[in-house]
Amino acid sequence: MTITTSSHVSTSPRALVLREAFEQGRLIKVAGAHDGLSGRLAEEAGFDALWASGLEISAAHGLPDVSLLGMSEYLSGASAMQQAVSIPVVADCDTGFGGDLNAAYTMMRYEGAGIAGVCIEDKIFPKRNSFLDNGQVLLEADEFGRKLEAAKRAQTRDETVLIARTEAFIAGMGVEEALSRCHQYVDAGADAVLVHSKLAEASEVISFMREWNHRAPVVVVPTTYSAFSVQEAQAAGVSMVIYANQGMRASVRAVRDTWATVIAEGSTASVEPHIATVKDIFSLSGIDEWLGDDK
Amino acid sequence: MTITTSSHVSTSPRALVLREAFEQGRLIKVAGAHDGLSGRLAEEAGFDALWASGLEISAAHGLPDVSLLGMSEYLSGASAMQQAVSIPVVADCDTGFGGDLNAAYTMMRYEGAGIAGVCIEDKIFPKRNSFLDNGQVLLEADEFGRKLEAAKRAQTRDETVLIARTEAFIAGMGVEEALSRCHQYVDAGADAVLVHSKLAEASEVISFMREWNHRAPVVVVPTTYSAFSVQEAQAAGVSMVIYANQGMRASVRAVRDTWATVIAEGSTASVEPHIATVKDIFSLSGIDEWLGDDK
Amino acid sequence: MTITTSSHVSTSPRALVLREAFEQGRLIKVAGAHDGLSGRLAEEAGFDALWASGLEISAAHGLPDVSLLGMSEYLSGASAMQQAVSIPVVADCDTGFGGDLNAAYTMMRYEGAGIAGVCIEDKIFPKRNSFLDNGQVLLEADEFGRKLEAAKRAQTRDETVLIARTEAFIAGMGVEEALSRCHQYVDAGADAVLVHSKLAEASEVISFMREWNHRAPVVVVPTTYSAFSVQEAQAAGVSMVIYANQGMRASVRAVRDTWATVIAEGSTASVEPHIATVKDIFSLSGIDEWLGDDK
Amino acid sequence: MTITTSSHVSTSPRALVLREAFEQGRLIKVAGAHDGLSGRLAEEAGFDALWASGLEISAAHGLPDVSLLGMSEYLSGASAMQQAVSIPVVADCDTGFGGDLNAAYTMMRYEGAGIAGVCIEDKIFPKRNSFLDNGQVLLEADEFGRKLEAAKRAQTRDETVLIARTEAFIAGMGVEEALSRCHQYVDAGADAVLVHSKLAEASEVISFMREWNHRAPVVVVPTTYSAFSVQEAQAAGVSMVIYANQGMRASVRAVRDTWATVIAEGSTASVEPHIATVKDIFSLSGIDEWLGDDK
Repeated sequence: MTITTSSHVSTSPRALVLREAFEQGRLIKVAGAHDGLSGRLAEEAGFDALWASGLEISAAHGLPDVSLLGMSEYLSGASAMQQAVSIPVVADCDTGFGGDLNAAYTMMRYEGAGIAGVCIEDKIFPKRNSFLDNGQVLLEADEFGRKLEAAKRAQTRDETVLIARTEAFIAGMGVEEALSRCHQYVDAGADAVLVHSKLAEASEVISFMREWNHRAPVVVVPTTYSAFSVQEAQAAGVSMVIYANQGMRASVRAVRDTWATVIAEGSTASVEPHIATVKDIFSLSGIDEWLGDDK
Repeated sequence: MTITTSSHVSTSPRALVLREAFEQGRLIKVAGAHDGLSGRLAEEAGFDALWASGLEISAAHGLPDVSLLGMSEYLSGASAMQQAVSIPVVADCDTGFGGDLNAAYTMMRYEGAGIAGVCIEDKIFPKRNSFLDNGQVLLEADEFGRKLEAAKRAQTRDETVLIARTEAFIAGMGVEEALSRCHQYVDAGADAVLVHSKLAEASEVISFMREWNHRAPVVVVPTTYSAFSVQEAQAAGVSMVIYANQGMRASVRAVRDTWATVIAEGSTASVEPHIATVKDIFSLSGIDEWLGDDK
Repeated sequence: MTITTSSHVSTSPRALVLREAFEQGRLIKVAGAHDGLSGRLAEEAGFDALWASGLEISAAHGLPDVSLLGMSEYLSGASAMQQAVSIPVVADCDTGFGGDLNAAYTMMRYEGAGIAGVCIEDKIFPKRNSFLDNGQVLLEADEFGRKLEAAKRAQTRDETVLIARTEAFIAGMGVEEALSRCHQYVDAGADAVLVHSKLAEASEVISFMREWNHRAPVVVVPTTYSAFSVQEAQAAGVSMVIYANQGMRASVRAVRDTWATVIAEGSTASVEPHIATVKDIFSLSGIDEWLGDDK
Repeated sequence: MTITTSSHVSTSPRALVLREAFEQGRLIKVAGAHDGLSGRLAEEAGFDALWASGLEISAAHGLPDVSLLGMSEYLSGASAMQQAVSIPVVADCDTGFGGDLNAAYTMMRYEGAGIAGVCIEDKIFPKRNSFLDNGQVLLEADEFGRKLEAAKRAQTRDETVLIARTEAFIAGMGVEEALSRCHQYVDAGADAVLVHSKLAEASEVISFMREWNHRAPVVVVPTTYSAFSVQEAQAAGVSMVIYANQGMRASVRAVRDTWATVIAEGSTASVEPHIATVKDIFSLSGIDEWLGDDK
């Protein structure tokens, strides 16, 4: 594939933020989000970047995370975040939404929208969420390497970060396979690797880090091994920690409790003190910036 | 305007649900939502219908509720809900997104997407949210009547519900003007009226109900007069109560608290017991229905 | 998969048009289109239905027909046509955009948009256009059968037409395989079969028809065997003929010639007599229906 | 309004192309388009830029050019072109889709998508196409000036071109009003002015140019005065000539003739020699670039 794109942009300041943190060894703390509002709440809390989570964007549509939505819905979610915040957005791009050409097209479209980081994983399309209990079968490492190469060739800005995510541990393959795959992915052009694990402890990730020797930045997603702290991550040499879905999960619990109370009590009076105000929503949606001069 | 549309549908079972409740005098309890997930949480709690809230959909995009988004983004939000639930969706369609032709087009597109109820208000486009402190100027009642007529002519299914929302109280106009406008709107074809108020008590709404004499179903939105209960609403003769944004406000508070804790503690361990599980997200996104036979 | 959808519609008059023609043995003439305008030109010419062509929709986006766009872009094109015309739309849905679940989701979304016919083909995702010179490898017939079953289970209106397209001839497999696959597809629930061929003559299609014995309606696409007439098609027992892309091809030639002249001559004066008027564009876009009463 | 946006981009090479031509006095020839394919045909013919025509994009949706579609559909059309070509895109943004805030949001979104030029006009929202025979009423010049200022404040890249379009001649207001408005618009920050006219000759435009004295670049749209050549335009001091809809009009005529023949003759055999080939469509959609290495 030899697509020559004439990008409309020359540099991406937000992607540079990621590059600099990688170089300086500063741990990047990332929060999962799925729309402008959830993105803004994460920025407000002090996160360094957003994760445009495939699980969250699917769930927001009322759909399971099994490749039902296409690139355009995921990109639309990532773009809404991008427009709402000033920190970088790292996009969960599943398998690149198909084969090599799809991975290239993914890079073109996400870069065109100004997204700082693009992450693709070595599952087979259509993929299923890693936390579902079904035997995950991975793409051959060579084939995934070609996909990464295709994405890289389509990239037009040097600073955009391509993250290769391996599901080797999820598929029960062990640390040797995880390492071997990640080396191959970096050879193919990946700027960082995401090593996913669904154990209740960080052991897989820690074994990986011991052998990896800082060859390229490593990203982890401590959803199941939630006790793994940023201090431990930093000590282990991890470059980026993604809290991929805790925001949405907090939201679900709160909305559930609130609506249950409203239905039980027949009014919203008793929930009022426990929820944000309408003014809070206005502020979060930028009303002051938009109406500034008018007021 | 004499558009003749050949609709692809003949009946809408969900719109019939609203019609039947109106006829039988059953109070319809409605929850505001902005995407498939928030819609599903409201359905699960037992609400009878969803309100595709303009405020929520704007805020979800990270934008204030001042007519920045167009019909397609609002319709897209309403459709996502519609696909995620089996209860009717009533869509907050602002001013109908412009003039008479826009109101007609709004009806065509929302009906085409299967939305049961369409609500348009007598503000001037571009509108600003009713809870913002700025002098609201309303459209002349005659002009808004023509807008309702245009929407009605574009309607192709008998059962679709067109709700005319008056901002007379919001604009400080008093009960006589509210009544006069609502009578005119019903004359113009509205199937129900929404009488908005931003007082801390239900007094405006109650005065209105006393004089209205059940001419057509009345919808209220007790955001500021939150103590107004469904029992009181029913006693006053109200047909539909919309809790327009409490779900999103609950979500904001919870996400804020959760992310603040995660940032402060450097891990998600202590928030885990207080948030929904990943499995909850899977269930809400319909994983069992989708993977049913495979498991 | 056991998704139970509560559709918002009970019947689709446009899908009934296809069903009736199939039953009465009336040949359905279908024109390829990619947006509202091209759809309206085909309706105006007297075609019975539209083909929401994947090749045309991709090309309109400036992209090759190799599964780069996702379902939402194709559905968006089909919906624009649907809204612009009153004849049925048959949608080219490639492979169903992935696996079984994607095929089910395709049916749900297209039915929800009121599309009368959904066509999926037995290629492997990501697919490449049938007229490209590259070895096409087909999905196992059993596997494609399961995809059809998944789409059928997701269908909520009896009259929607599911068309199974076999690429057996395109893949060089011969008439026995084409017949065997089509029988299996009808067993799996397909309401009609599309037998594609890229020979310069209709021979493959004719051999197929001889053995098929009218088991289910047959659709053909005489792009390469352009001399095959509707009379011959009817005589052979074909139920639907799709002229899949000639409209776009006529457009390309004309636009090319026109712009070349404008560039060469430095004005549009000499092309004016040979192109439609601005008024024609207004009429085609329905200005009289929209502004009717205002004029 | 004091929105501070943190743009994701620092420079736009394509917008620089427009700026340089303005400075060097090179006439920019622009062709109207509405999707990726029509954009590519214009680039291929040698045009310097594309006009993302509101009339064409509306008509492509099967809708009249009377503000039924919102910003997102127009932006989507402009983006499809942008992605398909390497020349700059100048976007027809109607009235800015509402008031001051909408104009600001328009600038934010179009700039975010890499569009080189944004054009807004001094009609009242919802607008009607300038060639429709209905009395056009314009916005007060001061009010439109504030809209331009709002758009300018939202701009984040110096080189983006904001074009102020006056409909003074269309509204029958004469050259003094046209000049006065254009001076005011340049004072308000417009980088160029578009002077629209619907006479059969260029007289209005020529009178304007005589008095304008090259204060800022002038754009003309010789739809009705089609004999006005690029040589004459250059001599008059015009900076940009837009052929806004001749491509679509050529297409309509050709598609109409082609489908009429196919219906009359019952096959496509006789139209084949007069239309582009399927291979032409493949080439235009970039198949060689996409499949390059695979073939």
